[in-house]
Amino acid sequence: MNYSFIVYILGWVLTLEAGFMVLPCVTSLIYREKTGLWFLLVAAVSALVGFLLIRKKPKNPQFFTKEGFAVVGLSWIAMSLVGALPFTLSKEIPNYIDAVFETASGFTTTGASILTDVEALSHTALIWRSFTHWIGGMGVFIFLLAILPMAGGYNMHLMRAESPGPSVGKLVPKVKESAKILYIIYLSITVAEMVLLIIARMPVFDAICISFGTAGTGGFGIRADSCASYNAVCQWIITIFMALFGINFNFYFFIIRKRFKDAFTIEEVRWYVALILLSTALVTFNTLRIHNGVGVALRTAAFQVSSIITTTGFATADFNLWPSLSKTILIILMLTGACAGSTGGGLKISRFIIWWKSIKNEIEVFIHPRSVKAVEMDGKTIEKDTVRSVSVYMVVFLLVYMISVFLISLDKFDMVTNFTAILATINNIGPGLGEVGPCGGFSGFSYFSKIVIIFDMLAGRLELYPMLLLLTPGVWKKH
Amino acid sequence: MNYSFIVYILGWVLTLEAGFMVLPCVTSLIYREKTGLWFLLVAAVSALVGFLLIRKKPKNPQFFTKEGFAVVGLSWIAMSLVGALPFTLSKEIPNYIDAVFETASGFTTTGASILTDVEALSHTALIWRSFTHWIGGMGVFIFLLAILPMAGGYNMHLMRAESPGPSVGKLVPKVKESAKILYIIYLSITVAEMVLLIIARMPVFDAICISFGTAGTGGFGIRADSCASYNAVCQWIITIFMALFGINFNFYFFIIRKRFKDAFTIEEVRWYVALILLSTALVTFNTLRIHNGVGVALRTAAFQVSSIITTTGFATADFNLWPSLSKTILIILMLTGACAGSTGGGLKISRFIIWWKSIKNEIEVFIHPRSVKAVEMDGKTIEKDTVRSVSVYMVVFLLVYMISVFLISLDKFDMVTNFTAILATINNIGPGLGEVGPCGGFSGFSYFSKIVIIFDMLAGRLELYPMLLLLTPGVWKKH
Repeated sequence: MNYSFIVYILGWVLTLEAGFMVLPCVTSLIYREKTGLWFLLVAAVSALVGFLLIRKKPKNPQFFTKEGFAVVGLSWIAMSLVGALPFTLSKEIPNYIDAVFETASGFTTTGASILTDVEALSHTALIWRSFTHWIGGMGVFIFLLAILPMAGGYNMHLMRAESPGPSVGKLVPKVKESAKILYIIYLSITVAEMVLLIIARMPVFDAICISFGTAGTGGFGIRADSCASYNAVCQWIITIFMALFGINFNFYFFIIRKRFKDAFTIEEVRWYVALILLSTALVTFNTLRIHNGVGVALRTAAFQVSSIITTTGFATADFNLWPSLSKTILIILMLTGACAGSTGGGLKISRFIIWWKSIKNEIEVFIHPRSVKAVEMDGKTIEKDTVRSVSVYMVVFLLVYMISVFLISLDKFDMVTNFTAILATINNIGPGLGEVGPCGGFSGFSYFSKIVIIFDMLAGRLELYPMLLLLTPGVWKKH
Repeated sequence: MNYSFIVYILGWVLTLEAGFMVLPCVTSLIYREKTGLWFLLVAAVSALVGFLLIRKKPKNPQFFTKEGFAVVGLSWIAMSLVGALPFTLSKEIPNYIDAVFETASGFTTTGASILTDVEALSHTALIWRSFTHWIGGMGVFIFLLAILPMAGGYNMHLMRAESPGPSVGKLVPKVKESAKILYIIYLSITVAEMVLLIIARMPVFDAICISFGTAGTGGFGIRADSCASYNAVCQWIITIFMALFGINFNFYFFIIRKRFKDAFTIEEVRWYVALILLSTALVTFNTLRIHNGVGVALRTAAFQVSSIITTTGFATADFNLWPSLSKTILIILMLTGACAGSTGGGLKISRFIIWWKSIKNEIEVFIHPRSVKAVEMDGKTIEKDTVRSVSVYMVVFLLVYMISVFLISLDKFDMVTNFTAILATINNIGPGLGEVGPCGGFSGFSYFSKIVIIFDMLAGRLELYPMLLLLTPGVWKKH
C-alpha cells in the first residue's frame, strides 16, 4: 500500500471540502445566521490540514487499483466526518453520530434523515445539507480530476473506483477532459432546473436546495412534507428532472456531439424510459381510488416512480399507505435503480440487462449444448470478465444486505422497516417503508444501527468494493 | 426435441405413481374409508395410460440435457395433476386447483397448505399427502433409475435435472447403483425415525406420516397445530431427524464405507452444523423471555431452526410472534437452505460457500491484480463453468422471486405475507410470516396466485431450469 500517496490525495480532498464550505458561509451572511461561523472555522482548519498534507509530494508515484479504491473509500469517510462537524459544533444536530449519518446520507445522495424537525434547521445548515447531495452526486474525484493538474495513468483508477455502473467508459480519450465535460453537463442541467422552478414560483432558496437534491438524486427536502406542498407545476418539473438525472450521461454527451443515433440506441436508456412509463401507468391505475381524479393520481405516481427509480427519495405522498401492488413495484424499482453513469444509485439497469442476457445464454446452453454466445449490449460484446464480475456483484450485494438487516434487527423494529431501511440506504434512495417511510425517519435506530447504515450508504454509493476493501486485512500490508 | 422419448418416460412416471397409490388404498382398507375407492380408480386409469405409453418404445434413443430437463419438468407437473385427482373426486378437497396446490406442495416437499382444517381429512387422504413428501424428497427419477432396466448415457441427464445442488456427483461409477444406495440410506433413516417416534409414544399413524414429512423435508402435519402437541421427546427426535435429512447424502455414503475422514471434512456439512448450532443459540437467547424456562426455549428454538434450515416447515411455535432478530435469522435460514445432495430445499449451503469464495477472489484481484486463483471446495478445484453457473443461479432465483412477488401482490395481502409466501414456497419450506405464518395458510390467495405459487414450488424443487425451460419457445422445435 502506497501510504504517502493516500495521504497526499486525502490532503486534496480536505482542501476541496473547505472550498465547498464557502457556500454555507455565504448563505449565513445573507441570512445573518451564526451557524456560518462554525462552517468558517471547520473550513479553515480543514484547509490548513489539507494544505499541510499536500505540501509533501509522494516520492513513489506507483498507484494501482488497490490504492485507488482504498483512497476513495477513505476520502468519502473523511468527507463525512469533517462535513458533519459544523452541524454538531453549532448544536443544530447535537449528536455527532447523528451528524455523520446526515452528512454521509448527503454525500452518498441517500437522503435518509435522522432529523425529526427539518424546518428547525438554519438556512446555512439546510443549504450545506442539500449541497452535499450535489457534490456527492457526480463525485468528488471526478471534480478533482477535472480541476487538478494530476497526470499519469492513475486517474483512471480513481474514476473507476468512484463511478457508478459495471464498466467505465471515458467520453473522450483524456480523463481530465471527460471529467470536465461531465461536470459541465451536470452544472447546466442543475441550473436549468433552478431557473424553471423559480419561474414556476418556487421560493429561490427552495429552488436551489431542491435542485441540488434532484441533481445528485439525493432527496433531502427542506420542508417537513418533502415536496408535497409545492404546486403541481413544480412537482412535474422535479419529476422530469429527477428522471433526467437518472439517465446515463453518455446520452447527453452524444446529444451535444449531435450523435443522435448513438444517443437513442443506448439499450439501458430505452429500458429505463420504458420502466418509468410502465411503472407510472401501473401505479396510477392501482392508486386511482385513493386520489382525487386521474390527474392527481398520475402526477403522484409519476413523482414517486421517478423519485424511487432514480433513488432520489423526494416524496409527495406517503406510499406506505398505498396498496401492496404499488408498494411492490416501488420495491422492485428500489432494486433496479437508475442508469449506470448517471448520478442515481441502486444496482443499475445495465446490470439487469447483463444479468438477463446471461440467463438467456445459460438456458440456451441447455437447448444447444455446443452454442457459445457472448453477451452483447449496444451492439458491443461484453467481456467475459465483466459478465462474471456483474454476477458476483449481485451476490456481494445480497450478502452485505442480509448481514446489515441482521445487524439492525437487534433494534426492535418490524420486518418491513428493517428490510426496506437497508434497501433504501444501501441503494442510496432514502425513504423505505414502515417506520422509515416517507413520513418517518431514521432517528429511532440505535447508534450501532446508525453506524451500520452509514457504512451501507457509503458502500452503496461506491459500489461496495472500496468500502469492503477497507475491511480486508491484506490491503494494509506495506510491501 | 425427442417427443417419443418424452412420452415414453411419462408413461413410466404414470405407472410408478399408480404403484405409489397402493399405500393410500391399503390405508383405506385398514380404516374402512370410502376415499380409497377413488385412489383405486385413479391408480387403475393411471396405470393403464402409463402402460399404453410404455408399450411403444422410442425409435430414436438420442437424448440430451434439453430432453432430460423437459421430461423432468413435465413429469412433475403430471404427477401433481394426477396425484390431485383423488382429493377432488372424493370431495375431500373439492376445488381441483386447491388439490393440485396441495399435491404439488407435497411432491415438492414444500408443505404449504390450502387446508383450513387438516384434521377433517380421512386417514387415506392424510397418508397420501404425507407420502407425496417421501416420494418427492429423494425424487421420482432417482427411484426410476434405481429400479428400471434403463441403459445408456441418458440416465445421468435425468439425475442431473432432478438432483439438488450446484453439481452432481455419482456415489459410485454406475448411476443405477448410486440411485439404489441413495434409496437404501433414505429408507433406513426414515424407518429409524418411525421406530423411535413409536417408542416415544407417538401414535403409529402419526409416526408414519410425520416420518414421511421429515424424510422428504416436507412439513405437512396431520394435526392443526403441526407438531406442537407431541411430547418433548418426540419433538427432539423430529428436530434431530430433520437435521439429519438436511445433510448431504455423500456423508452417509462415506460413513457406510468407513471413510470417516472423507465424511467429516465435507465443508458444506461442517458449515451446516455450525449454522444450526449458532442460530439455535441466538434464537434461544432472543426468545428466552417468551418461553417458560431455558429448556423449553432451547427445544422450541432448535425445532424451528432445524425445520426452517432444512426447509421442512413443521412448527411447534408461532414464530410470527417472535422478536425481529429471531425472525430475521429464520428468513436468512430460509434463503440458505440445507446441503446439496440432501432432501432439503433452498439455495443450498454449498452455493453460498462458492459465492463466498468467489467474492474473496474478486476482492483479491483488486489487491493483487495479477493473481488468478481457482475456487476450491473440499480440496478440489471447482470448474470455472460451475462458478459462473452458480453466480447466474442467484440472479435467476432473484428474478423469478421478484416476478412472483409482483404477480401475487395483485391480491390484497401485506408485504411481509407476499415476500415470505414466495420465499417459503420457492425454497420449498412451507410456512412464511404474516398471513402465511405457521398458524396461517395459503387458502386466502386467488387462483391466479395459487397457480403462480404452484409454478414456484415446482421450479424451486427442480432448481429452476427444468421449469423455466418449459417456458422457452425454442425448446419445442422438432428439428
